[in-house]
Amino acid sequence: MSSVMLKEIREIPDVVRRLVVDGADDNTRVAAAIRAASPRVVVIAARGTSDHAAVYARYLLESHLRLPVVLAAHSITTVYERSMDWRGSLVLGISQSGEGPDVATVVAAARRDGAITVAITNDPASALARVAEHTLACRAGVEKAVAATKTYVAELAVVAALVAALTRIDGPGVAEDDLSGALPGLPDVLARVLQASEAWVERADALVEALAASDRALVVSRGYDFATALEIALKLKETSRIFADGYSSADLLHGPLALAGPAIPMLVFRPDGRMGIALDGSLERARAIGARPWIVGGRDLSGLETGVRAVSLPVDVPEPLSPLCFALPGQLVAESVARRRGMDPDSPPGLTKVTKTL
Amino acid sequence: MSSVMLKEIREIPDVVRRLVVDGADDNTRVAAAIRAASPRVVVIAARGTSDHAAVYARYLLESHLRLPVVLAAHSITTVYERSMDWRGSLVLGISQSGEGPDVATVVAAARRDGAITVAITNDPASALARVAEHTLACRAGVEKAVAATKTYVAELAVVAALVAALTRIDGPGVAEDDLSGALPGLPDVLARVLQASEAWVERADALVEALAASDRALVVSRGYDFATALEIALKLKETSRIFADGYSSADLLHGPLALAGPAIPMLVFRPDGRMGIALDGSLERARAIGARPWIVGGRDLSGLETGVRAVSLPVDVPEPLSPLCFALPGQLVAESVARRRGMDPDSPPGLTKVTKTL
Repeated sequence: MSSVMLKEIREIPDVVRRLVVDGADDNTRVAAAIRAASPRVVVIAARGTSDHAAVYARYLLESHLRLPVVLAAHSITTVYERSMDWRGSLVLGISQSGEGPDVATVVAAARRDGAITVAITNDPASALARVAEHTLACRAGVEKAVAATKTYVAELAVVAALVAALTRIDGPGVAEDDLSGALPGLPDVLARVLQASEAWVERADALVEALAASDRALVVSRGYDFATALEIALKLKETSRIFADGYSSADLLHGPLALAGPAIPMLVFRPDGRMGIALDGSLERARAIGARPWIVGGRDLSGLETGVRAVSLPVDVPEPLSPLCFALPGQLVAESVARRRGMDPDSPPGLTKVTKTL
Repeated sequence: MSSVMLKEIREIPDVVRRLVVDGADDNTRVAAAIRAASPRVVVIAARGTSDHAAVYARYLLESHLRLPVVLAAHSITTVYERSMDWRGSLVLGISQSGEGPDVATVVAAARRDGAITVAITNDPASALARVAEHTLACRAGVEKAVAATKTYVAELAVVAALVAALTRIDGPGVAEDDLSGALPGLPDVLARVLQASEAWVERADALVEALAASDRALVVSRGYDFATALEIALKLKETSRIFADGYSSADLLHGPLALAGPAIPMLVFRPDGRMGIALDGSLERARAIGARPWIVGGRDLSGLETGVRAVSLPVDVPEPLSPLCFALPGQLVAESVARRRGMDPDSPPGLTKVTKTL
């Protein structure tokens, strides 16, 4: 039986294809406005899945624009009612529904006090879009499953296109990080990654069974794909009620490693390149105490035996775009685990599609 | 049988007493240097328990100094080797041991490029102290248990004293947040909270048993005490191998609420004042799906039936200082749960006192 969640995951390559083309003019316009404002700091307001898009945006903006990026603590504005000094800030509000009062309140306060504000939302008629000066639409179409999938990847794509338009790289790595050059080919890459991921999840019965049989799991990555670890952990929580903890491999070593062991499934997203190599070192520490990680990797899994436990996917994009690709196998695994646990991945217990917090 | 961890928790009031007196001159000097530099943004580099002190510092600095605060993503410096624009920044490195290469590397890079840098560490001879321009010592004495307790509260106290010296409040709430006025009385408050907390944990056998019997738990608070939720969740992970997830009550509603229910112990730290009231609303949502939260509160638990399930502690400080108080019952619970589970809270499996990540 096929879920709405699965159907929506399968739409992702086309969602991103539309976005790259139809969103180009808005993207150019908003990038020009940001450049003109020349912000000194970026603040991102977001919750839940969108907060993981914010984590992605944070790595991309800091590494490519050298700007410090703050992930907003909404309560300082909404509960403690303290006024921040927002001058010289670019404030991004990210929300699928655009209806979270906390995100809109922070963006409205920032705009009133002189920040340049941009809403990234799937609903350009939402409260968030109305309070922000600029809006970048996710163009993902209506999302029906409660667990966000296509809107998450669409948010990442909006962020990547915006940073590509703003990019100013000094230092090493220009060639490997040619975002503007890589974006046009991204939809085709996503289509191939989707196909390869679906084939892998069908074969990866042992992984799905291990997760479905466990109430606990660790999901690990680092850098740009720290967002992937957090987001896939959240999908497992939402759809399968598994205590899945998402960690950066470095943070894992500072305490939470105590949780790892032979009985705890560990899912790792391993991009090619320098972060992949950095991850390998941490995984050795986990293996030393009995963990047997499942590795979802890119083209280069040299040194690792590929097969069901380590899958190589055609992630043929620079590492900063890899989170858009790795979201797909991660979401597919979560959907599959939910059904294996006899749960409806489209309607997790106790959750609603739009969450309003202040 | 008494653990070293318990002994070190009991030292906390005296550690803070020493710190407030002996650290005063350093604090004044570093605050003056920061004021002279007049930073526009703060970046905090920290890992593990110290990262939770950073979360606390973030709320305190943003709400009291109106400065945007970034929690550093070390890998941008250490793995991706991108140079940030550090001019106009105050960069704090927080580390008990001061020996984490990632934290020291970020602080060194920031100092080289023009930031004002401050090390907050329990070892003023450490690598971190050597690379930073200024050092504020935690003065907690040697900590032997692997799970940090007294050094965590000492880090919070250093941060609170520094912000008190820098404070410039405009907007409501000056009186309720008189940090400088409250700090001299803090050690006595901590001594009374410690005593009351020990008495409560002895009575709270049902809570200790519920946590010890569960492999999963939720630890919830928000605002200043979001740090408390994260830190006590980490203590439960480290000492008892419980998948304890620390959440802000707002983030909890954006997905992870699916994890709550009658079988999952939920521990809530509820400060008096406006955040306590904000928390109550989220707890209603959790109760509606069967959760039965244990509440650790301050003086004001009006509307809640006190007893073992809701304890009122003499947290007689302004809310921004409450995390120093609530750390005590939280740490005591974690220590008690570890022993109940037959584990040695002083030497968690797979962990070492000093963790070095890059």
